[in-house]
Amino acid sequence: MKLKRSSRLVDLTRYLLQHPHELISLSFFSERYGSAKSSISEDLLIIKENFEGQGVGWLVTVPGAAGGVRYIPRVSEQEASEVIEELKHLLSSSERVLPGGYLYMTDIIGNPKVINKVGRMFASMFADRTIDVVMTVATKGIPLAYAVASYLNVPVVIVRSNSRVTEGSTMSINYVSGSTKRIQTMALAKRSLASGSNVLILDDFMKAGGTIKGMTDLLQEFEANLAGIGVLVESEDVQERLVDDYISVTRLTAVDTKDKKIQVEAGNYLDRISNGE
Amino acid sequence: MKLKRSSRLVDLTRYLLQHPHELISLSFFSERYGSAKSSISEDLLIIKENFEGQGVGWLVTVPGAAGGVRYIPRVSEQEASEVIEELKHLLSSSERVLPGGYLYMTDIIGNPKVINKVGRMFASMFADRTIDVVMTVATKGIPLAYAVASYLNVPVVIVRSNSRVTEGSTMSINYVSGSTKRIQTMALAKRSLASGSNVLILDDFMKAGGTIKGMTDLLQEFEANLAGIGVLVESEDVQERLVDDYISVTRLTAVDTKDKKIQVEAGNYLDRISNGE
Repeated sequence: MKLKRSSRLVDLTRYLLQHPHELISLSFFSERYGSAKSSISEDLLIIKENFEGQGVGWLVTVPGAAGGVRYIPRVSEQEASEVIEELKHLLSSSERVLPGGYLYMTDIIGNPKVINKVGRMFASMFADRTIDVVMTVATKGIPLAYAVASYLNVPVVIVRSNSRVTEGSTMSINYVSGSTKRIQTMALAKRSLASGSNVLILDDFMKAGGTIKGMTDLLQEFEANLAGIGVLVESEDVQERLVDDYISVTRLTAVDTKDKKIQVEAGNYLDRISNGE
Repeated sequence: MKLKRSSRLVDLTRYLLQHPHELISLSFFSERYGSAKSSISEDLLIIKENFEGQGVGWLVTVPGAAGGVRYIPRVSEQEASEVIEELKHLLSSSERVLPGGYLYMTDIIGNPKVINKVGRMFASMFADRTIDVVMTVATKGIPLAYAVASYLNVPVVIVRSNSRVTEGSTMSINYVSGSTKRIQTMALAKRSLASGSNVLILDDFMKAGGTIKGMTDLLQEFEANLAGIGVLVESEDVQERLVDDYISVTRLTAVDTKDKKIQVEAGNYLDRISNGE
């Protein structure tokens, strides 16, 4: 297709947004548009200036014959603060208090408008690490894990509490839930994770961290490496945390079941940005 | 921010892609860029021509004071054919045959590169229907449901086989699995679906359709309406199908567990497009 510069800019922008973290050669675009590489380079410079100016992504150019351009989704500190404020507001609604002090979060977890923003935040935070796979545990972590995986352009693997006939051979481990101290089982299809993979673990909620600790144990069985841990909500109400190094977007500091009051603060996400992570 | 036309085109394209199915007023863009509405209209025309020429989406302009512009993701018939061919190729690998004739699909389901394309296909197919919510059943349908919901800009609700303390009051129903004839239970949090909602049901796999039939029964309990049904893979090996009107992307016609051979054909997706759905 032969396109004018204006239309080429539209198409390039869309193509890059739909192929995050993928190295695309200038020759590919040059052929796609029937334009000289020099024109494509000028277009990419316009997109780079806009993306980096707006804080929505980096455009990294790799020089040389095997080179090209790579779009890396990013969230600015300001945008991250706004998303965290929005989440604090959403989460602290008194209607979310459930019997036993649990928090109803299903609507937030199933809302792509919110979860895609959080997904972009984690993709931005872990943009510089080598990540081959995003891992989560069924069921509630899946939408967030899928959103992050989309922006990192890697697959998701889903750990389950039981093994299923549709998964083939599975590796099972036992782990101790940090809060209830109960012994539980988690399983992952043997063929779903290659040894040596670098794995980003994500979940919607972390209390003592038993489930996430279980997933890190599972990584060892698969000879895979932990690349990072991220949670949407961490709970402060914990005697002993089983996981140290994690990124949280929000922190639940108090749930008063009698008066139906919930206190939510920002997690450590913004601190980590400020520390240059 | 005051932007030049070239940079404005980049920003507008990104903004529209990230806000599908949302009516955005020209005043919003006019203020955002400090530009006259007439300039914005010209920009939108360039984007419209590109999107519609490339078959990646419609740009619908709503005139009047309450009007604006709405981007509707679309997949062309050619692109849909290519995705279906890719899926047929992926699915028919002999390594997918599991004991009992089951098919290993976990890697495809967890691959955003593939699932986002299928998500766009379903969003395109159902673009004209009124859809308030996408519904699926845990676990394997969630990534696809989430992808479709992202492109339709609506929430996902997840039906589960058990009720959890983190969901509050739930509505449970019993249903009969179409293939195994076993009685099973599915549950949905009472507050996750408002009465009168128009619901698109999605799943990764459909054999006799018992699970999907169960979800349609659940809709009745919530006084919600069925807006459509879509599945990634339907199995032809069925004596009596419990669901009539559905869209399938691929169709599994034979699994030979002895010789490890799998036959996969295109589903009815393309026929439905040709019939002007």
